[in-house]
Amino acid sequence: MKAARRLTRRATRLSERQFLAEGPHALREALALPGCVVEVFATYDATTRHRDLVEACASTGVAWRCVDDAALATLTDTVTPQGVVAVCRFLEHQIDAVLAAAPMLVAVCASVRDPGNAGAVIRCADAAGAAAVVLAGTSVDPYNSKVVRATVGSLFHLPVLSAPVVSETVATLKGSGLSVLAADGSGELSLDEAADSGLLAKPTAWVFGNEAWGMPAEELALADRVVRVPIYGHAESLNLATAAALCLYASARAQRSANPGAPGQTR
Amino acid sequence: MKAARRLTRRATRLSERQFLAEGPHALREALALPGCVVEVFATYDATTRHRDLVEACASTGVAWRCVDDAALATLTDTVTPQGVVAVCRFLEHQIDAVLAAAPMLVAVCASVRDPGNAGAVIRCADAAGAAAVVLAGTSVDPYNSKVVRATVGSLFHLPVLSAPVVSETVATLKGSGLSVLAADGSGELSLDEAADSGLLAKPTAWVFGNEAWGMPAEELALADRVVRVPIYGHAESLNLATAAALCLYASARAQRSANPGAPGQTR
Repeated sequence: MKAARRLTRRATRLSERQFLAEGPHALREALALPGCVVEVFATYDATTRHRDLVEACASTGVAWRCVDDAALATLTDTVTPQGVVAVCRFLEHQIDAVLAAAPMLVAVCASVRDPGNAGAVIRCADAAGAAAVVLAGTSVDPYNSKVVRATVGSLFHLPVLSAPVVSETVATLKGSGLSVLAADGSGELSLDEAADSGLLAKPTAWVFGNEAWGMPAEELALADRVVRVPIYGHAESLNLATAAALCLYASARAQRSANPGAPGQTR
Repeated sequence: MKAARRLTRRATRLSERQFLAEGPHALREALALPGCVVEVFATYDATTRHRDLVEACASTGVAWRCVDDAALATLTDTVTPQGVVAVCRFLEHQIDAVLAAAPMLVAVCASVRDPGNAGAVIRCADAAGAAAVVLAGTSVDPYNSKVVRATVGSLFHLPVLSAPVVSETVATLKGSGLSVLAADGSGELSLDEAADSGLLAKPTAWVFGNEAWGMPAEELALADRVVRVPIYGHAESLNLATAAALCLYASARAQRSANPGAPGQTR
């Protein structure tokens, strides 16, 4: 329990290569990945409510530890904890393996700091059928409990990687044949124009900048094109995750129109 | 001050037909609507920081009242108040006036309870160029301070109306010639199919259901079509505001492709 509690700190997560995932939904998704779940802490109440999960843990040799509500609360920062916290192993995805599968669509967060935003981008990328998400630069840790929660299970569905330097990530993605599009309000090309021109049908990596200051000029310059989501009304801007969803879905639609039979995740 | 403080309660807002808008950005947007702002409460610090707003209020006869930080904090529920709270008159939009202008795109929230979600839908609708947003059924009050904040100024950009009964709203919108599309995961038609078939180019009202339980069958049955946002990957669902953005932008794009020269907000 004490060891698990230390996983609320990033430094411990990095040294132990383990993290905490909260709630029965996240546990169910994590159990679908063999070897991911180390052990489970649950309240007595949650234990009686989630017999299927207790049994799934028993059948795969994952320890299920009953604790009282107060003890469980020390593992989570939510106001109304869901009664179940899983200790999980890092998913240990590698960019080389992702790129070797010739992905059609990848999302990159360039120094996205807010856990809710990063988690929402991961969830959107999963919905749009992206092959991976890279949290680059000074982006939040993907194993931060708020990120894990905001992905609503998607963290366990597609590779989510950290990469320290945005420019290196962009170079690696370009080198693998992906067209790199930066989403930014300053873009000379609108998302509709990008779709109409056929640009979005190509294998693409979208890069989304920080929620407050966007992307610095030197990072924008690395992209093949800078694309803006058009504002047709009077709103000043769109929320980061909303803009990301519009860009990723525009690519998914263009790629599916160009290759109707393709599964869409590889080329 | 005491009267302003009572506007944090819905009943008082309804009887006084006034509400509170927090922050310099919201005040700037509200001042753009003649007669909207009644008075402004601001901390001494915010008063020295926002000379342009002090002058704009002076030139239009809006009282600017300096108060201390503790007093201002009683008008807001944010942890870090932005130092400025405006007392505003209700915007008093009428559905008849909205429909008389022959809108191309309207968004309806059907019993959306979460203020952050409703505010995000209003912001997306504004960005997509929708002509109005109707908060129908048991949806949250559009003048709730959390809604006002989540719209990031968009509450002042397009008509946002309340309507007590979803079925009556749908009937009114249909009667004015709008095609009513319900966004729901159960839809037999995907958003891409709706776009490809030309359906989205028509004048459209999109209806979005409650964040937890969606739309009840009897409300879905009122729509001309039920449309689902396709999930290409493994995500279980999309956040309400994200789904709304994808639907509204798909309509905006289809309508602009069909009528390249049109302003897009009227037909």
